[in-house]
Amino acid sequence: MPKTEHWGWYVERFAPTEEHHHAIGRVLYSGRSDFQQIAIIETEVFGKMLILDGDTQSSERDEHVYHETLVHPALAAAADRSNVLILGGGEGATLREVLRRPDVRLCTMVDIDGLVVDLAKRYLPEWSDGAFDDPRARVIIGDALAYLRDDREAYGAILSDLTEPLPDSPSHPLFNDAVFSLVKTRLAPGGIYALQASTAAIHNAALHCKMARTLRKHFRYVRSFFTHVPAFDTDWAFLACSDTVDVASTPAERIGEYCAGLRGTSAFYDAETHRRLFALPLYLRRMLAEEGEVF
Amino acid sequence: MPKTEHWGWYVERFAPTEEHHHAIGRVLYSGRSDFQQIAIIETEVFGKMLILDGDTQSSERDEHVYHETLVHPALAAAADRSNVLILGGGEGATLREVLRRPDVRLCTMVDIDGLVVDLAKRYLPEWSDGAFDDPRARVIIGDALAYLRDDREAYGAILSDLTEPLPDSPSHPLFNDAVFSLVKTRLAPGGIYALQASTAAIHNAALHCKMARTLRKHFRYVRSFFTHVPAFDTDWAFLACSDTVDVASTPAERIGEYCAGLRGTSAFYDAETHRRLFALPLYLRRMLAEEGEVF
Amino acid sequence: MPKTEHWGWYVERFAPTEEHHHAIGRVLYSGRSDFQQIAIIETEVFGKMLILDGDTQSSERDEHVYHETLVHPALAAAADRSNVLILGGGEGATLREVLRRPDVRLCTMVDIDGLVVDLAKRYLPEWSDGAFDDPRARVIIGDALAYLRDDREAYGAILSDLTEPLPDSPSHPLFNDAVFSLVKTRLAPGGIYALQASTAAIHNAALHCKMARTLRKHFRYVRSFFTHVPAFDTDWAFLACSDTVDVASTPAERIGEYCAGLRGTSAFYDAETHRRLFALPLYLRRMLAEEGEVF
Amino acid sequence: MPKTEHWGWYVERFAPTEEHHHAIGRVLYSGRSDFQQIAIIETEVFGKMLILDGDTQSSERDEHVYHETLVHPALAAAADRSNVLILGGGEGATLREVLRRPDVRLCTMVDIDGLVVDLAKRYLPEWSDGAFDDPRARVIIGDALAYLRDDREAYGAILSDLTEPLPDSPSHPLFNDAVFSLVKTRLAPGGIYALQASTAAIHNAALHCKMARTLRKHFRYVRSFFTHVPAFDTDWAFLACSDTVDVASTPAERIGEYCAGLRGTSAFYDAETHRRLFALPLYLRRMLAEEGEVF
Repeated sequence: MPKTEHWGWYVERFAPTEEHHHAIGRVLYSGRSDFQQIAIIETEVFGKMLILDGDTQSSERDEHVYHETLVHPALAAAADRSNVLILGGGEGATLREVLRRPDVRLCTMVDIDGLVVDLAKRYLPEWSDGAFDDPRARVIIGDALAYLRDDREAYGAILSDLTEPLPDSPSHPLFNDAVFSLVKTRLAPGGIYALQASTAAIHNAALHCKMARTLRKHFRYVRSFFTHVPAFDTDWAFLACSDTVDVASTPAERIGEYCAGLRGTSAFYDAETHRRLFALPLYLRRMLAEEGEVF
Repeated sequence: MPKTEHWGWYVERFAPTEEHHHAIGRVLYSGRSDFQQIAIIETEVFGKMLILDGDTQSSERDEHVYHETLVHPALAAAADRSNVLILGGGEGATLREVLRRPDVRLCTMVDIDGLVVDLAKRYLPEWSDGAFDDPRARVIIGDALAYLRDDREAYGAILSDLTEPLPDSPSHPLFNDAVFSLVKTRLAPGGIYALQASTAAIHNAALHCKMARTLRKHFRYVRSFFTHVPAFDTDWAFLACSDTVDVASTPAERIGEYCAGLRGTSAFYDAETHRRLFALPLYLRRMLAEEGEVF
Repeated sequence: MPKTEHWGWYVERFAPTEEHHHAIGRVLYSGRSDFQQIAIIETEVFGKMLILDGDTQSSERDEHVYHETLVHPALAAAADRSNVLILGGGEGATLREVLRRPDVRLCTMVDIDGLVVDLAKRYLPEWSDGAFDDPRARVIIGDALAYLRDDREAYGAILSDLTEPLPDSPSHPLFNDAVFSLVKTRLAPGGIYALQASTAAIHNAALHCKMARTLRKHFRYVRSFFTHVPAFDTDWAFLACSDTVDVASTPAERIGEYCAGLRGTSAFYDAETHRRLFALPLYLRRMLAEEGEVF
Repeated sequence: MPKTEHWGWYVERFAPTEEHHHAIGRVLYSGRSDFQQIAIIETEVFGKMLILDGDTQSSERDEHVYHETLVHPALAAAADRSNVLILGGGEGATLREVLRRPDVRLCTMVDIDGLVVDLAKRYLPEWSDGAFDDPRARVIIGDALAYLRDDREAYGAILSDLTEPLPDSPSHPLFNDAVFSLVKTRLAPGGIYALQASTAAIHNAALHCKMARTLRKHFRYVRSFFTHVPAFDTDWAFLACSDTVDVASTPAERIGEYCAGLRGTSAFYDAETHRRLFALPLYLRRMLAEEGEVF
């Protein structure tokens, strides 16, 4: 038998008939927390990858695309960035991006799975890049829903970096009207709620549209934006929700100033990228305009 | 042994360590022409797929994204659309999109592989949707390079819908300076040369940039644009080249009028999609600005 | 994207966690009959393969192992070989092996799926090797169970070459007490019923033992024998059942004479191979001796 | 995306066109020693598996088949079992089987890869089942070839449990005439050299026959024997070599007495299994009788 370079493959199944196979270079961690199955592997094309319950969460090579997209459109448009809340975000990369703005005074992150946070610190330090040690960071291991219920603060931006609300996932109880009402009460005036929101690919945008329809019951402006995230194998979508701010229309100058005020270097986001993110193709605008199911 | 729903899988290998597996519903055709290996299959998620030499060429579910993107930005910007040339394009979908404009009087398509054209007519009629029977269509089975050498016509747009210029592919001899010089001599004043140009994903945009750099030696305006094509598993890029027309800057009104003049219904392209296609993310603008290898 | 030699793979799933992947060279046929999904492919290692409902039925490279094992131990031991019945056996290879003995005067084969027989004649002629044209062959397309009910002949050997009796398979109604009683009434004195009977591998012999236990209710001698069939990816087992003949004990001289009387050349079976087939390893003898479930 | 039960698969490639995929339950270890890539995983069907350089070495579910076959035919036939040598055998299961005979006074095991031995002790204790702690066991981490050169002892049996002699494997320098001459000088009178010797499947027995032919230059009796090892996905062959003892012909009574003298319970080997192991099918006897390449 000829030697094989790679004995192991990570297989992500998108549908019973669609799989992506990544050859595993090294297994850095493989186990199970109280909440989910966790694996951290190295691959040649995507570098390190974090996998929860068999789904890619982020990869070393393109996590900047995902995390800059989740954070900066919302923060650039927010009226006040001094106090920011992250739901989920265990890798620490959403936290990292938020803290790049010096006008953020406090960023609270609530993730249910302390093991993911610990493993991210140990095996994926590039993701947080020191953010966990920033005095402005407050990391709470706990239930985001309980936190929202008990909390009394007002946030300029709430960023939801949870896994997809699939029936068995720990994030499932966090996607419904009651939660959105809670989120809304925690937003400061001019505040923005941004969340990752499934795919927006032409053959597979129904869940995204359902999420958007649901949120339109709660917020005046619910804007879809999306980008291809290579490690996700598809276009990934987000929603920016607010009663006062239309994130899709943030002026290029404001974005330019915002980006100039970021510490470090961005890989993906600036005013032109913003234009790309929010310019939706014909099929998606049509689908978003249709009536349909809500959560 | 439990019954399996699908006995066969189409495996597209992007790298020795990256594969996408599609379960095969039916094999409509599987064989080899004088030029390449050809397969036409049905899949649940992407519908029918055309596969040449193991690479997905187009899928029923998203071929509109690809073909509208290849054709319409160039045609919307072209000074004169009366005479159009397609290099490759065997499925007939590029031809279909071109002929949707009534002001196209003649569209010549030159594809080397007559078997692909015949199989597309038989198994993929939705792709050409009658275009092969349009009296304005002229289909030549032959070598695109020889055609360019012998031809004396002037085209308002030349659309290159060839497979990737990989070393063993039949399209490889069509990607070099000599060919681009030839192409240029065939463009009418205000003419545009548009071609598909590999991927533009953050981890894999080097070949696209090399293609762009090469073409900048020949044309004043060389504009990158790209979109995610789900069946390709990645962002797919194109280049629009001209000495007189900057396709990235076509005014929205012109695009609106152009689209209004198209027969039938578009799935993807209009002025807002155009804005998306040509608004390049930060990393790609940086990479395109760098010096580097050319063909 | 680098060219891949093979775009398609046949994936046989043995369990939700175990699969064998064979690269497809050519797809000779792929479709569905009234009874099952049928595929005929070419592979480099196994040559042509017949696949029914996702399960390998036989391969060009090793079908002799399977078919010689099904036929010759039974025929060598049978008191009278003049009249033989095959249940299933669509490929025609069981028929071929039976007809290699000149003392077979008539061999009736009853297969429910005429399309499998037609495809085998067209694409797998090496399997039947002319047997379908032998005047001693009688091929009936129909239900084996109905045939057994209506038939009044007496057979020196009945060979069951059906697919595994899985819940949804067309062979499922053919594995129960009523059928075995019917089979028994069709056996001539000294007659033998031989059938393929799942795997006998150390980790997966339970179904075989259940089949053996069930048949022991009907026959005095129920002998297990097995061999590795590479294309099946495992050891494959058979049962030889009779009230009068212990097939495991056929003397080597009798086998030698029997084999000498076969037309053509055998690849696998002779007296020493017989000894191998019926010498069961310790674990299997232990398992067969245990009480347990029956059909 | 639907949750997948298994995110990782172990893919063993037997040929560029043949692969077996095992879903990974847990990764117990994954790393690299100075000599080879090592992985220890759990699977549902085979239990724990040891994988070296991408090749299955043994599995919890069927390692008894392999190790009993390597050890007992040789030891049952050997004139004197007091002193036994194992080349390789890192898991400790060959050692375990040898030490089951009380008349073994010393068993020396020489394995080059101390990490494999350490990992086996930690993660695969069922394999050695205490054998490493037996006072009769002597484990040397070192080069088997150097050991053979320097050693002056005489062994009643030398058992070679090395990985396949593929060009890049650490066992490659151990398969040639010089080594066999050395081995021979270390055998006591009536001594036997037994080694694992590739596959004996009908489509893939050439390497085994080449190994047998090579050894026939050195020993009077070179006997092939083989069994299906499910985790290896194929029939696995061995060779028993001696100038004085024909292992194929060990009388059943001697085997019975030998087995009765083994501590603990066997899963696979006894006199009937011995008959099976050494009764070779027609194709293999034909191939072994042919002239051909040697090492």
